[in-house]
Order: sequence, then structure tokens, then C-alpha cells
Amino acid sequence: MTTPRRSSPSQEEIRRQNLGALLRHVHMRGAASRAELTADLGLNRSTIGALTAELIAAGLVSEEVPKDTTRSRAGRPSLVVSPESERWYVYALSVEVDRVRAARVGLGGAILDRREAPREREHEAAEAAAPLAELVHDMHRHVPAESVYIGCGVAVCGMVRRADGAVRLAPHVGWEDQPFAEAMKAELRYDAPVSLGNVADLSALAEHTRGSAAGLDNVIYLYGDVGIGAGIIAGGRRVTGHGGYGGEVGHMVVHPRGHKCGCGSQGCWETEIGEGAIMRAAGREHLSGRDAVLAVVDAARRGDASAQTATRQVGDWLGFGVANLVNIFNPEMVLFGGTLRDIYLVAAAAVRSRLNGLALPVCREHLQLRTPSLGEDAALIGAAELAFEGLLANPLAA
Amino acid sequence: MTTPRRSSPSQEEIRRQNLGALLRHVHMRGAASRAELTADLGLNRSTIGALTAELIAAGLVSEEVPKDTTRSRAGRPSLVVSPESERWYVYALSVEVDRVRAARVGLGGAILDRREAPREREHEAAEAAAPLAELVHDMHRHVPAESVYIGCGVAVCGMVRRADGAVRLAPHVGWEDQPFAEAMKAELRYDAPVSLGNVADLSALAEHTRGSAAGLDNVIYLYGDVGIGAGIIAGGRRVTGHGGYGGEVGHMVVHPRGHKCGCGSQGCWETEIGEGAIMRAAGREHLSGRDAVLAVVDAARRGDASAQTATRQVGDWLGFGVANLVNIFNPEMVLFGGTLRDIYLVAAAAVRSRLNGLALPVCREHLQLRTPSLGEDAALIGAAELAFEGLLANPLAA
Repeated sequence: MTTPRRSSPSQEEIRRQNLGALLRHVHMRGAASRAELTADLGLNRSTIGALTAELIAAGLVSEEVPKDTTRSRAGRPSLVVSPESERWYVYALSVEVDRVRAARVGLGGAILDRREAPREREHEAAEAAAPLAELVHDMHRHVPAESVYIGCGVAVCGMVRRADGAVRLAPHVGWEDQPFAEAMKAELRYDAPVSLGNVADLSALAEHTRGSAAGLDNVIYLYGDVGIGAGIIAGGRRVTGHGGYGGEVGHMVVHPRGHKCGCGSQGCWETEIGEGAIMRAAGREHLSGRDAVLAVVDAARRGDASAQTATRQVGDWLGFGVANLVNIFNPEMVLFGGTLRDIYLVAAAAVRSRLNGLALPVCREHLQLRTPSLGEDAALIGAAELAFEGLLANPLAA
Repeated sequence: MTTPRRSSPSQEEIRRQNLGALLRHVHMRGAASRAELTADLGLNRSTIGALTAELIAAGLVSEEVPKDTTRSRAGRPSLVVSPESERWYVYALSVEVDRVRAARVGLGGAILDRREAPREREHEAAEAAAPLAELVHDMHRHVPAESVYIGCGVAVCGMVRRADGAVRLAPHVGWEDQPFAEAMKAELRYDAPVSLGNVADLSALAEHTRGSAAGLDNVIYLYGDVGIGAGIIAGGRRVTGHGGYGGEVGHMVVHPRGHKCGCGSQGCWETEIGEGAIMRAAGREHLSGRDAVLAVVDAARRGDASAQTATRQVGDWLGFGVANLVNIFNPEMVLFGGTLRDIYLVAAAAVRSRLNGLALPVCREHLQLRTPSLGEDAALIGAAELAFEGLLANPLAA
């Protein structure tokens, strides 16, 4: 039940909304015929024609006669509208514990170029911005003339204040209250907005719009790195919470007498399924980092008994926490991203069996467990969506 | 990010939406002047006048000159539009473990009449429908002539399939896959819809629209009875999950080596804060029922040391689970309803101190803990909203 909504937008607002809806449609779903747009957007043919003409004039879409068409009885085939993918682009960045990644993403969501570099765990926000900007500047030298830069989106494995892009807390990256969007904007030196989001939230967004969870309304995307986070979609919309800090499932306490957590608490879920837990379970406490986790998974896959015990144990705790989330959210799909993807792939049986033991049958009856179809690109594509938001809300303001 | 929405509703749809918005406004917020409606609904004065006239003709609202008005410079005071509260009504029912309640609720949300009766724990759905219908029929004999019955809403402490009002699972009521809406409709013998919802969901709805949480977008309503459930509002909308079974926080496992739960699992939150846990902690395992819980709370309030230890212990576990939910949802408010209201009132310090120890500071920084301002009426008022939904969606179809 919501409060009564304002019911009479101006003509200008309606036009802007419709332009945004059309551009968003081709951005999200790719080229579409005018007939499809008419049906999908619920607008009449002449309105679609007028909107398309405006977007063509702005250089945002192009239109062509479809190549291979069986002529319909009516005669003329419906023109096909495509986003100008190469012309409009954003930069999408991902700050992870051990590496930073950058991509140039075109309207329509295609990754046009990409770079990656290792990250020093002790780097503060200001120090991290410079090498990231370096990756961007390197790509920028190869951008075709006539291309238009829209903005930059950044995925961070931490808690982000959306209003100003400050990182409130990112324990595994080692940041607290750091104005990273500002630092990044200063290093980039381009006159366009820089927006920040949480990596799990943005990955969930990407999978929900273009990946495994497309078309589903109740989805949980779990992201594992050193810690654990979730991007949650409920009723088709992201659960962000009051300040935007929701989804901190890694700090759901699952084991009251469990291990000390970096957050100061004890027995948090990430102390049982995070990087440290995997290394501990495998008897490799002296190692850390993404590659060390993947080495354990790899050893388990090759039949190493102690690695198999470790992945089974972590898989068991993974299923434990997923069961809690399933009872709370009754989702259609849970996605395992980051290093949890690899853990899930070798320990799926342990995850499912613990889950089935703890989740109410009614809450899990239509549940699918999956790995993200966008893989590691989900974070980048989600960050790109953040950067495209302004353009899609008001296409002709660009 | 949602799919493009259909952007051109017909004139008829717009009129229906506007009629619904106006009626919902006075239903939710009470009498309002035409000037207030014009401002709040974003419609112009003549549209508000025309819509009001239609609703008056249908007998849904009335209009009058305000009694005590300081004349504005413009001269005529703005007419005040009120819902016809006595004329349009629904029945709201609540099926609890040890009792059933029924109320007649008028348009605008006022409880016009009410009845209550004890419930036998072993009664099946069909057996429970008859005594509930008896309460309704008794109220019905006192309904003024000219009054119009809209429908019936029922709150059940169990998992409800919204589509057909079947109770999928209500372990503490002892029901599984029972077509309760159908049974209730047959017993009532009135030709109007009967809708079912979960008690925590409906209480959350009521508190969110008319109670402590009015105006807040991120709210968790915890309902305690024999078991524990939650109604969750995220981003202004109820989190229902794929099948409508979300919010089963009572079966979030918080204690891997804890007590056996009725659901077949072990260490569920409700084994630490439900009725059984309270009785166990107080050394009164031989007692059960709502009154037994309230007796423990009362003893604690009067200084009984073992009752105080018990409520502190339960309060500690209450804070434990709330911390998990706060990390997941970053809510603005958590409400304690049902018997949790009473537990919270004597154990607030234990709840808050455990919560502060486990919830991330960023996730709890704007959190308020509260008891429901509608008290036990929340379930009935929420059930009434369910019954009013059809009328508010399309006022003139009634």
C-alpha cells in the first residue's frame, strides 16, 4: 500500500518518460522492431515513430530495414531500432581486495574494452584511485572520435553511501569513511559524474537485467571475496535499506560460539564461508588471496581429500546461511558469485543438502541455485548500469 | 531497474486510478479539504471537484463546509471531503493460536464493532470457520440498514497462498494445506470475497499505513505468538517473496546446536524466543498459552528474579536475531508485536545491548525499536485493508 501517487504528469514529463522507456528497452534487450516496441511499450505506432525520430536525431539510436525478412502480408517490414552502442559509452570500474578492473561499456551493455591490475591490500582510497584512472586513461586513448562519454560507475566490496559515493566501511579493502567517488573523479579529470555502488548489489542488478535472473522478481546474489555480501531483489526491486547499507548477510551471525569476525562480532557467516574460513578448513592458514581460494577448489576437484573435506565443510555452512535467507525472502533464485561460485561448483551437494534440511519446504519449493551467467563481468556491467542511469532517465539532456 | 512500463493508460483507466487515489487518500488519512486533495494528488481543482462529485453520487464520500474556519482572503472556505465510514464496511478476522477475533471495520479504518472467542488448539480449519462466522453473524445483526458490506479479510499466523486463500502451513494452529478462505466463505454465506494474509504481514501493513511506522519505507514488524513471524517493508513495499511465503524469520537458524524446532530443523530463532522458550527459561515448561507468557512478563515486572532472568535471556536472543535482520535490511524501525511486545517492554535493555554488539554500526545508525501503536488491533486493521483493496482499486465497481 503506497501513498496516493501524483497522477497528472505534464506533457513534457510524459515525453521524457517515453523517450527513456524506448531507449531503456533497446539498451536492455537489444535491437527491436517498431512493431515490438509498439507492443512492449503500450504506445501507438505514430508515437513510437516520433520518439524514434527524436532519438535518431540525438544520435542515440539508429534505424534500418531488417536484412532477412519474410515479407508480411501488410507489405512493408517493420523498421528495426538499435542502440548506438559504439558511440555512447561509460567506464565501469571494480575495486576488489586483490585487484582492480576497468571496462569501457557501450550503450546496450557490450564491453568494448577492458583492463585489469593487481591491488595492494594496504592502499587507501586516494592511492587506489590513481592506478584505476591509469587503466581508464589507457583505454581512453583508443576511443574512436565522435564517441560520447556518459559517466563512470564503480563497484566496491564495501558499504557505500549512494548520495555522495563515500565508502562508509569496506573492512577487507581496509577503508572507512573515504570519499572515493570524489577521489576517482579528481583522478579521471573528465567532466561527468562518478557513481559508486556495492559490488553484490551491482552484480545482482546485472544478473537481474541481463543474466541468469532476467525476468525473475525475487533473487539473491551472493558475492564472496575475503568477506561475503548480498545483492537482493525482492518484488522486482533492489532491497537497499534506509541508508543503502542492506544486504550485509556476511554479518548474519550463524554460530554464537563461532570465530571472531573482523567486525568485532563473533560467529558471523563470513567467518565460516569467507576466504579465511576456506584457508583454515584446508589447513592453509598461512595463505590468502583469491588465487589461494581457487587453488583449494582446484585441489578438491582433482581429488585431494583434505581440500574436499574443506570445500564440503564450507559448502555445508554456505547451505546453512542460504537456508536462512530462503526462509526470509522466499526467492526464486540464489546466485553464487565471486569465489562462492567456485566453492558452489565443487560443493553443490553439500550446499543443497544442508539447505533442504533447514529451509521450510514451502519457502524453497520453486528455488533454483545457479552460478551467474555473466560471471565476473556482472560487477562491471552493474557498475555500467549505474553510470547509464542518468542518460536513460532523460535521454535528450545528454 | 524495471522493465519499461506501459505509458499510455486510457482515459477510463486514468479516471479509475484517480477515483481510487482520492478515495484511498481519505480512507488512509481521514477527512481532507479539496485544497489539500488538490495539492496531495497533484490534480487540478476542477478534476478534484469532478472526482468528488462521482464519489458522492456513489455514496462513498460526503462533503461539507468546515465548521470552524477562519475565512481566507479568497472568501469561500475549501469543502471538506470525508469517507462514508459508517456506510461501507468489511469484516476483519484474526485466527490466533488460542483465540479468534472478529471486527467490523468502516471505510476510513475505524473499528465499529468487535467480538472475541477462545480457540481450541486442535480445531481444523473447517471447525474453526464456524465459531468465527458466529462472531460475524452476531455483529451482522446490529449493522444499520443501508450499510454496504465489501468483503472479509483474515489474518492467520501461518503461511498463506494469496491466490486462493489456502493455508499452506500453520504449525502452531495445527493446519497444513487447508482451504480456509473457502471454508470461511461457505460459513459466512455472504456474496463477497474472503481474502487471507499472514498476521505479521498484515500487522506490518497496518502499522506502516496508520501506526508507528507511518511514513517510513524500511520497517520490520516482528510478531510473536507460539512461533515468530515477520512482516517486512523494504523500499515502501512489502517483501512477500515468490509465493508470498517470505518473512519466516522464526525459522532463521541462530543456534546450530540449539533445541529441536517443530519445523524439523534445529536451533531456529523461535526455539529461543517463542512461547516454549519463554516457559522453559522461566522454569514453567508445564504451562503454555498467551496468558502464561504474560504471567512471566508480569512476574519479571514485579521483581521475580527467575522471571527476570528468563525475560533477559529471551531478550538477549531477541536482540541476536534482530541484529541479523538489521544487517540484512538496514531498516529504520523494528516493531515488536504479539507477545514479543510484552517481552520487549521488560527486556529492552537486553535486546538493545545484544543488538548493538552484533549489528554493524552503519546498518543500525538510524534504527528505532518500537512497540506497535495500534497494539493488537494491527492484525485486524491489516486484515481490513486486505478486504478494502478491491474497492480502492476500482471504487465505482462496488
